[in-house]
Amino acid sequence: MKSVLFKHRSIRKFRSAPIPEELLHELLEAATRASTCGNMQLYSLVVTRDEALRRELAPCHFNQPMVTEAPCVVTVCADVHRFSMWCAQREADPAYDNFGWFLNAATDALLAAQNFCVQAEMHGLGICYLGTTLYTAGDIARILALPKGVVPLTTIVAGYPDETPELTDRLPLEAVVHYEKYTDYTAAEIDELWAEREESALTKRLLEENGLPNLAQIFTQRRYRREDSLAFSASYLALLREKGFFNQ
Amino acid sequence: MKSVLFKHRSIRKFRSAPIPEELLHELLEAATRASTCGNMQLYSLVVTRDEALRRELAPCHFNQPMVTEAPCVVTVCADVHRFSMWCAQREADPAYDNFGWFLNAATDALLAAQNFCVQAEMHGLGICYLGTTLYTAGDIARILALPKGVVPLTTIVAGYPDETPELTDRLPLEAVVHYEKYTDYTAAEIDELWAEREESALTKRLLEENGLPNLAQIFTQRRYRREDSLAFSASYLALLREKGFFNQ
Repeated sequence: MKSVLFKHRSIRKFRSAPIPEELLHELLEAATRASTCGNMQLYSLVVTRDEALRRELAPCHFNQPMVTEAPCVVTVCADVHRFSMWCAQREADPAYDNFGWFLNAATDALLAAQNFCVQAEMHGLGICYLGTTLYTAGDIARILALPKGVVPLTTIVAGYPDETPELTDRLPLEAVVHYEKYTDYTAAEIDELWAEREESALTKRLLEENGLPNLAQIFTQRRYRREDSLAFSASYLALLREKGFFNQ
Repeated sequence: MKSVLFKHRSIRKFRSAPIPEELLHELLEAATRASTCGNMQLYSLVVTRDEALRRELAPCHFNQPMVTEAPCVVTVCADVHRFSMWCAQREADPAYDNFGWFLNAATDALLAAQNFCVQAEMHGLGICYLGTTLYTAGDIARILALPKGVVPLTTIVAGYPDETPELTDRLPLEAVVHYEKYTDYTAAEIDELWAEREESALTKRLLEENGLPNLAQIFTQRRYRREDSLAFSASYLALLREKGFFNQ
């Protein structure tokens, strides 16, 4: 059964038409039906449609045009604040100001996010996740006025597609699936799993453009460089501390 | 459109019938179609069907019966190991041994996990996420032989349902959705958002059973206690260190 899941493409060009209110409501409802830790719903979805505010968010996403072109930007946040407020109002001692609860909340948030996206695609909408959210989470938190106990994890841009990209290739299924236990890869298996991608026309074009000998070096030297990774790591950890996820 | 997403219930009783091989393959394929950071697929899905191994995993999930009763247990892992191996074999410098890449990989893993579950439910299968995975991740990593760069995030049990539970209630949509920016809650709003749940027959029964004055205290005193949360936080952070996510 080739469901809608098999047709997912990240969409980066959108028509300006807004998502009808009722439909947006349905996508958000679908998000809330995802599994959630102890039915605590430890997440918040910040739906930004205002153009000025999307323009303010754009630099946090390295000015990728879809942040201002897509009609709807959803910042997906781990949120222990709301649940902690409720506990405090009931003389219950909320012990969610620690790393374990960041992980519980992040899990809740990301499952809800994917439900939002699947439901959107069922309706012919297009979405793209913005990984930049993790790199600039502190700035996003400031712009969106996130209180203690709330941190951004990812962002979804959504709207009606204005492009029809090809399906992206994936590694062979056996690359990511292990049966019974984890079976470590031999060097030859790694070579084999990446062979098709490395020999593709797209890779050949990228190597020429970048003047590099192989695709892996495009990842490590161009797309995700050590110094950037270390800076992003440090700034996200600092944000977790600031937002009270390392209090204990 | 009340899609399959609106019918999700966590299933905790399963028939013993296995998931047919071809169907399982389709669910795993659906998982791989989820969005992934830079098309790096930074996750592994460890599919455990062997009964002896499921029995070994059961204590990690507090001996919840579905781990041995469901025919299929999928441990969802963040995985930077496979990609790092590939880079190392190409004389590219893989800088994924830091917290930022744990977050990228966790995002990839959880979006893939939710696709697996949605596709499973489209076929009438039932699933349940096991949050216990985060609490005993070190033991799970040992049992499943996870190498450096790989950590468990959640577990999915899947199979044919042997129960038809009611839909779980959720907070009103306005509890989790914010428009434009985050709007902090007033105390009165918190009261209102939880009112229906607090007045439910289920809550009244729980209060009697637990001898506690309100639902929030059932969460903080029975289900998720401070001392447990702090212990789980510490042990997961130790695992991240052991698995090389804080090398830099």
